[in-house]
Amino acid sequence: MPELRKDPVIGRWVIISTERGKRPSDFSGAPKRRTESKLCPFCPGNESATPPEIMAFRPDSSEPNKPGWTLRVISNKYPALRIEGDLNREGLGIFDKMNGVGAHEVIIETPDHDKDLVDLSVKQMEDLIWAYRARTMDLRKDPRFRYILIFKNQGETAGASLEHSHSQLIATPIVPKRVMEEVEGAGKYYGYKERCIFCDIIKQEVSGDERVVIQNESFISLEPFAPRFPFETWILPKKHFPAFEDIKKENIPELAAILLETLQRLAKALNNPPYNYVLHTSPVDNDYAEEYHWHIEIMPKLTRVAGFEWGTGFYINPTTPEDAAAYLREVEI
Amino acid sequence: MPELRKDPVIGRWVIISTERGKRPSDFSGAPKRRTESKLCPFCPGNESATPPEIMAFRPDSSEPNKPGWTLRVISNKYPALRIEGDLNREGLGIFDKMNGVGAHEVIIETPDHDKDLVDLSVKQMEDLIWAYRARTMDLRKDPRFRYILIFKNQGETAGASLEHSHSQLIATPIVPKRVMEEVEGAGKYYGYKERCIFCDIIKQEVSGDERVVIQNESFISLEPFAPRFPFETWILPKKHFPAFEDIKKENIPELAAILLETLQRLAKALNNPPYNYVLHTSPVDNDYAEEYHWHIEIMPKLTRVAGFEWGTGFYINPTTPEDAAAYLREVEI
Repeated sequence: MPELRKDPVIGRWVIISTERGKRPSDFSGAPKRRTESKLCPFCPGNESATPPEIMAFRPDSSEPNKPGWTLRVISNKYPALRIEGDLNREGLGIFDKMNGVGAHEVIIETPDHDKDLVDLSVKQMEDLIWAYRARTMDLRKDPRFRYILIFKNQGETAGASLEHSHSQLIATPIVPKRVMEEVEGAGKYYGYKERCIFCDIIKQEVSGDERVVIQNESFISLEPFAPRFPFETWILPKKHFPAFEDIKKENIPELAAILLETLQRLAKALNNPPYNYVLHTSPVDNDYAEEYHWHIEIMPKLTRVAGFEWGTGFYINPTTPEDAAAYLREVEI
Repeated sequence: MPELRKDPVIGRWVIISTERGKRPSDFSGAPKRRTESKLCPFCPGNESATPPEIMAFRPDSSEPNKPGWTLRVISNKYPALRIEGDLNREGLGIFDKMNGVGAHEVIIETPDHDKDLVDLSVKQMEDLIWAYRARTMDLRKDPRFRYILIFKNQGETAGASLEHSHSQLIATPIVPKRVMEEVEGAGKYYGYKERCIFCDIIKQEVSGDERVVIQNESFISLEPFAPRFPFETWILPKKHFPAFEDIKKENIPELAAILLETLQRLAKALNNPPYNYVLHTSPVDNDYAEEYHWHIEIMPKLTRVAGFEWGTGFYINPTTPEDAAAYLREVEI
């Protein structure tokens, strides 16, 4: 059983994945080679190589766990957290731990092994957002979970271990530190101003315009004022919505369009960079909901100054967000 | 002039290095090639290729900025922060920024281009610690600076842009977020228990022993209970000292010995991995000093799951610290 352990000084939880139990020699392997489609567990025809599907879109009404799907959600075969069991919170002297209980799912975005997310149609992107929403709503019902986190790693250097395009979902019994900091920061601002800080940021950015990449009626794509990484880009709903999963049906096509176009602009400007995105929604526990404002953070992996930043939380960014926004606006897609 | 900008939601400052001004095409270059010694600005004979030296150890009493040195400290030729000027704190609507004022120095650890830190003698490591101490004490006098941060990037994937072995020092007008979290966490614990949390951790680890790598009379090297990274290793003074620069002369040989041996054990167990280390000392402002406990955090770069962690602050570690400590104790050096 994996363990969740808490750093006693700063209160950060980490997952210690005891079952993976990596030895020193496991870290010095050769780089992974491109998987061929017939060996890829995410390709149609290889459904038996994965855990059974949790949900799938099957326009041809084909049988579960057989080809015919356009999008497929499965449990991660090598989960960071385990779905069975109780938390069993426990102290070890000064230290705190609990069982690594949680859900770890994989959303296979397309049956086509050779397509990246940016190659999909707006309709396929809509389906992906529907799947994110459905899985989040389902897992929110489990009282053991405090947070449902959706993210994507694109490219090996961004942490993708299989190249067939996919997103991931992790449901955790704690709220991740970065999200909790945002919730607390937004709560403090709300307490002082009685306004949402994200709404205020959007208002200022729309009037200034120099950090806006693109926008449509309901969403905005922008470079944040103090980005950690070059070309870090956020997508936010313009109106105040604390939780992603409360997105209205009629807004899903607009979100699909702006996410796809933003990723396409990044891909074109930066020559298909590896990237990560995370969807920050409000915690399951609703106490904070009114002050929070969900959004997507896209982080291209362009720079290598990683360990120093990990050790200090202090980032050096060689590209101004104003320059990055201008490049992204001007690129032809 | 670089800028320091503050994220309005979570309060994290970043350095926007406007002068480096990287364009999209700057990110897709080929990997850097090994620099030859005669082209290396850190090699003896090439002193004129660097800014003039701030200090150097010259056992032969040779002239400044000429060969003969065994350790040399210079300003970074491409500094992330600029030493001249005032902070000029300023608001831009909801946002906050200030000038990127600070010091950015490079400590060249050896004249020998082909030696890594682990190849140095204990005497050379002692000199390095003396240099860290001297530069920290000097920069603490500048009233603009709130933190003096010493760190090392070893290997290209850990962010080292020149392979000649060196450490860096950055003096900043703000306290880095991670350090501030530790200071606040330690302060909270002290307020509750009237004891230092790091002292309590050391006491528990010494009695349990399963996460201890090595120790000598004054220092301990251990795997923390909740490490973010496999083989993350901390070195702490066993007695309570808030600030590194208050280290006693007679303790420097012991620190040199334990740092060198710890790095050698990591190098042997993990086949010379790229790594970063950061020295966490107390902020210049002494308000918190009594509750803090300085230490060095060493982070081998073995895993690639970077962007997800950047986006959430939530780390998945595939090696237990108990296993890592056992491997490091057993390795023959």
